[in-house]
Amino acid sequence: MSKPNIPKGTRDFSPEEVAKRNYIFNVLKSHFQQFGFLPIETPSMEKLSTLTGKYGDEGDQLLFKLLKRGAKFEQALNQVSKSEGVSDHQFSEEALRYDLTVPFARYVVQHLNDISFPFKRYQIQPVWRADRPQRGRYREFYQCDVDVVGTTSLNAELELIHIINHALSALKLPNHTIHLNNRKILYALISSCGESSNFNKITVIIDKLDKVGKEKVLAELADQINNPSCTTMFESIFDLGNDYKDIISWLKSRVGATELGLEGIEEISYIFENCNQLGLKNITLNLTLARGLNYYTGTIFEVVLNDYNMGSIVGGGRYDNLTALFGLKDISGVGISFGAERIYDVLNESQLFPDEISLGPEFLIIDQSNAVSNAFKVAEKLRELSKRSMIYPDKQHKLKKKLKYANQNNIPYVLFISDNFNDNMSLELKDMITGEQKSIQLKQITHEING
Amino acid sequence: MSKPNIPKGTRDFSPEEVAKRNYIFNVLKSHFQQFGFLPIETPSMEKLSTLTGKYGDEGDQLLFKLLKRGAKFEQALNQVSKSEGVSDHQFSEEALRYDLTVPFARYVVQHLNDISFPFKRYQIQPVWRADRPQRGRYREFYQCDVDVVGTTSLNAELELIHIINHALSALKLPNHTIHLNNRKILYALISSCGESSNFNKITVIIDKLDKVGKEKVLAELADQINNPSCTTMFESIFDLGNDYKDIISWLKSRVGATELGLEGIEEISYIFENCNQLGLKNITLNLTLARGLNYYTGTIFEVVLNDYNMGSIVGGGRYDNLTALFGLKDISGVGISFGAERIYDVLNESQLFPDEISLGPEFLIIDQSNAVSNAFKVAEKLRELSKRSMIYPDKQHKLKKKLKYANQNNIPYVLFISDNFNDNMSLELKDMITGEQKSIQLKQITHEING
Repeated sequence: MSKPNIPKGTRDFSPEEVAKRNYIFNVLKSHFQQFGFLPIETPSMEKLSTLTGKYGDEGDQLLFKLLKRGAKFEQALNQVSKSEGVSDHQFSEEALRYDLTVPFARYVVQHLNDISFPFKRYQIQPVWRADRPQRGRYREFYQCDVDVVGTTSLNAELELIHIINHALSALKLPNHTIHLNNRKILYALISSCGESSNFNKITVIIDKLDKVGKEKVLAELADQINNPSCTTMFESIFDLGNDYKDIISWLKSRVGATELGLEGIEEISYIFENCNQLGLKNITLNLTLARGLNYYTGTIFEVVLNDYNMGSIVGGGRYDNLTALFGLKDISGVGISFGAERIYDVLNESQLFPDEISLGPEFLIIDQSNAVSNAFKVAEKLRELSKRSMIYPDKQHKLKKKLKYANQNNIPYVLFISDNFNDNMSLELKDMITGEQKSIQLKQITHEING
Repeated sequence: MSKPNIPKGTRDFSPEEVAKRNYIFNVLKSHFQQFGFLPIETPSMEKLSTLTGKYGDEGDQLLFKLLKRGAKFEQALNQVSKSEGVSDHQFSEEALRYDLTVPFARYVVQHLNDISFPFKRYQIQPVWRADRPQRGRYREFYQCDVDVVGTTSLNAELELIHIINHALSALKLPNHTIHLNNRKILYALISSCGESSNFNKITVIIDKLDKVGKEKVLAELADQINNPSCTTMFESIFDLGNDYKDIISWLKSRVGATELGLEGIEEISYIFENCNQLGLKNITLNLTLARGLNYYTGTIFEVVLNDYNMGSIVGGGRYDNLTALFGLKDISGVGISFGAERIYDVLNESQLFPDEISLGPEFLIIDQSNAVSNAFKVAEKLRELSKRSMIYPDKQHKLKKKLKYANQNNIPYVLFISDNFNDNMSLELKDMITGEQKSIQLKQITHEING
């Protein structure tokens, strides 16, 4: 029988990996909670009608659809036999969720009567995409989303910037930059060269700037859009530099006279000025930031680690019409998503996980006495002291094997219960790192451990 | 547009429900960890070959299979058109996991080189079954499993009994009974009336005792097995009463002379005698406990709440051949699974969830000053004190609306920032329960909150 394995693009997580992943999730959760966000969870599967058409054609292709069962499956088969127009939709009514944003919009509309706005929610759950697996890209992975819906206040944006700085600092992630832009500005700019009908097409092209570089983006713009004023404008944008004031004054001269342009400039100015007042650092105005997703309508965010050559580790933005997908209009919201998988890779490669996140036993109890109850008594005492312990279950194994077990499992202390334990309650405590061993009394154990 | 909804048998969880569910998971996790168990996680989906044939025909029917995509789907369609023998297996290669036990056995075999035995693992993850949904039965639900594999020591059983008593007591669940039996004893008993070939059939019948009662079980035994000595024997067992010593002495006379019977009696005696010595309470020997699953080979457990008319809230047992499903023999293990959904229902109905599990903000900050930065300063101060707070984002809303928001969201305190905050750093603190309001200084806030 060949060794069993798991579907490609999926992963098992060992105890050490689970501990590390939970560390990231817990840091994020505690920050989300401190800023007044509350957790929700949605089912792994959604109706196909909820998901299809929300992620573009490519996204629809990547949905993991669930196969119909029983009579419904037979019916689908019959349709095939009759050669009626057949697609995979006839074989499926449900699919695994592709992200947390669409299910969240569905949740808000479905539970409207139980929600008071502004509704601040976070959600940390897996999502599934039938993408071609590659390094750092999985078919099952976690998203960590935090959103506030039901307010147009830009203070929500300020708060998200606050959370990003706090959480990344708590995770000890070094040197990040929060790139900010505003889709209203982008729209005004693209409209200013008469290309508003190509808005999505152009944002997709300029979104590639980081990957392919300035020359190729300009060439693609010239090729696909074929409007010299548009290409020239983006050339100017690419050459603008990083100075906030320069960019704003250029923007004002270019699109400050249009309603949308002015709104965008005012929004981004509000954010930058208040960040300045609040001492919120690491932000930069980046007019080439576009974000692929169509539903963003205002501020957009992307966070990169300056010292790591990888994509963004946080992304998000404001959306004015997301719940409109499910018939509920005029609920503006803004949210960001932390890329836990990339954060994990950085912390792991740079050995930034704290030592104390291990969940493993701190004591291995090796019973050399006659009564089973002795080991249980000692373990109970350790639990009262909130110490994790493990009784080695197989008394007949050789001592060498037992000590090797402690080493293999990084258990720092071994407690031996000798056969005269019942007379004097005395134990031998062995430090597995130094190798030192000494006799202690059970009642002294508190002192020995904490002292 | 009609309101969106979710697939039947699945659930959304509100912030309050997530907090309550996490409370249960966290209590269980902390106990598992204190007893030296470590977490693993496996993918939501497994290869069909890993899952099929492991849960009986009925189980296979209940698997949520994932639909093939792209060229593989087209190929499956072609087979239908050619009217080749078609089953749903041709349309699927993967399915969502049905339980945590089979994926755990697969994990052990796959990662054999990284595991040192005894391997103590816990796993708290959702599973999926396409069962007919009904009250308390869902298509997506969590299992909380704790197992030790790679040891035959019965001390592992003792430890699991320990964990059950500790964890249920920590959850404040009242009056439970741990029913224990041993599959060796059951096998010896059934063999003693010459019905070993009907072992599984008989265990399925007697497993219904709680649901249908003694008379119906005996009638079904008489009808299906048609062996008077078997029916008579189970009649005697049903009349044995609860006295441990009586049961053991009856067992010795009945099957004490057979090898398997003696082994079973010795195992169960070891457990009961040591539980007695260790003061482990709430256990009872129940010869009618059978457990439906075929892979159990030794001790079996089931825990019920005496005051609630529902099925078991914990179940499990010892298995000698589970990893043999994947080609690895002679790895004995024992484990139990906590039914988190039923535990949730009991805690909820009996209002046993502690008050302090809410994750909601403790302070609503209402900014009536001129500078945005003031509210952020106050929130930052609260976070330094580990207090969860929320800034009401929309300044233009009426005060009444803001206070209503605090009430609706059970936020106990409101902090008002007045327009002369910058002069004197003074705030108004309103207790939303008593309605009391008083002026405090920002620097006094520590004292006010903790004092």
